[in-house]
Amino acid sequence: MAEGELKLLGTWSSPFVIRVKMMLEQKGLSYEYIEQDLLNKSELLLKHNPIYKKVPVLIHGDRDICESLVILQYIDENWSKTGPPVLPVDPYERAIARFWAGFIDDKLLSSFIGILKATTEEAKAEKIADTHTALELLEGAFKKCSAGKDFFGGDSIGYLDVTLGSLLGWIKTAEMMSGAKLLDETKVPLLVDWGKRFLTLDCAKKTLPSVERVEKHARELQVTRWKVATAN
Amino acid sequence: MAEGELKLLGTWSSPFVIRVKMMLEQKGLSYEYIEQDLLNKSELLLKHNPIYKKVPVLIHGDRDICESLVILQYIDENWSKTGPPVLPVDPYERAIARFWAGFIDDKLLSSFIGILKATTEEAKAEKIADTHTALELLEGAFKKCSAGKDFFGGDSIGYLDVTLGSLLGWIKTAEMMSGAKLLDETKVPLLVDWGKRFLTLDCAKKTLPSVERVEKHARELQVTRWKVATAN
Repeated sequence: MAEGELKLLGTWSSPFVIRVKMMLEQKGLSYEYIEQDLLNKSELLLKHNPIYKKVPVLIHGDRDICESLVILQYIDENWSKTGPPVLPVDPYERAIARFWAGFIDDKLLSSFIGILKATTEEAKAEKIADTHTALELLEGAFKKCSAGKDFFGGDSIGYLDVTLGSLLGWIKTAEMMSGAKLLDETKVPLLVDWGKRFLTLDCAKKTLPSVERVEKHARELQVTRWKVATAN
Repeated sequence: MAEGELKLLGTWSSPFVIRVKMMLEQKGLSYEYIEQDLLNKSELLLKHNPIYKKVPVLIHGDRDICESLVILQYIDENWSKTGPPVLPVDPYERAIARFWAGFIDDKLLSSFIGILKATTEEAKAEKIADTHTALELLEGAFKKCSAGKDFFGGDSIGYLDVTLGSLLGWIKTAEMMSGAKLLDETKVPLLVDWGKRFLTLDCAKKTLPSVERVEKHARELQVTRWKVATAN
């Protein structure tokens, strides 16, 4: 079952899609990428993700897998012999990775996207402060998870590296558009260095869109359709 | 490491805590339960869950594990030889279980708690309709996951059984307080039968509070402190 080809339904700017692309690259799996228009949802998307009607959707033969963090774990478990493990092996370290992945999508993402969505200076300042708080907590998480090595996953990138790494383009965009330093080396030096290392990796270079393109897109979204675009 | 005793910080009414109790019972693991007051958070809670300051927290020796679905997977993986597996073995079935667990906490829970929180008849009717929709989708999920057997997990209860089973007391309470039939056998006959079977299990009988107690609590919450009580 499901030995068939891999297809990924996505939108180019979605960090949820980008993290799946990163993991597929990291595992060396070839796939067909099919860009979706969330303002005019395709029959393909509605068929393969009838519940949420969102991207990403990984289609593996006759299997549909939705929700980015679920997809990452599926890739890890289905191709467990291909490349280094995505999640740590130790049950407690796995729990910690899942906890922080949830935190990234729950707290960090809403904070820095909130900067771009803010309609008052006061709201923007609040979201900048929230982003700093979230990043500082992640700095502590990096210290523990990496144990002095280069990545959350240790010597090679893992679940948290791609979960957070997929956001780097949008974080940079939020910095440029707000004028606020978010990945500030005086506050989160380990994360700043991690981000620099991460961006040199093939899986990052091949999948992250340019900051200029994301910024242009964000400026369009600011005046049009945030609600659809932030679907994950 | 972490061969020490198990402690669970919780509140008696929280379905997020109840599902962890269910899983600990199911695995036959003994633990010390320590009731928390979320209106007056203990030093213990703040120490062991400094990020979210919520329950449940499972303390296992020198390890702290937070977030109910993360805890369930930790229990499954750390005591993988004890009792039947909580998550399916097949990677795709695992992905499906994780997808629907997310759906239960994201869509179903907010719908039926929304019934209790609604301040207008219109809002209540909308949340009742949302709950029906969510349960009908879960009816389809049950059909696929159980493959004709008694539980989402097949012959024995698994991840989705405890994730959904922990909500049964609150769903019944929402039914009683709203007058709306939610687990309606004309709409979701498989789930109704599943619920009856689930409630006969030791792990359910030992952990679910009485509907009367939940209802009394819900009526208090309606006029006081929803925000704190729905923390997970």
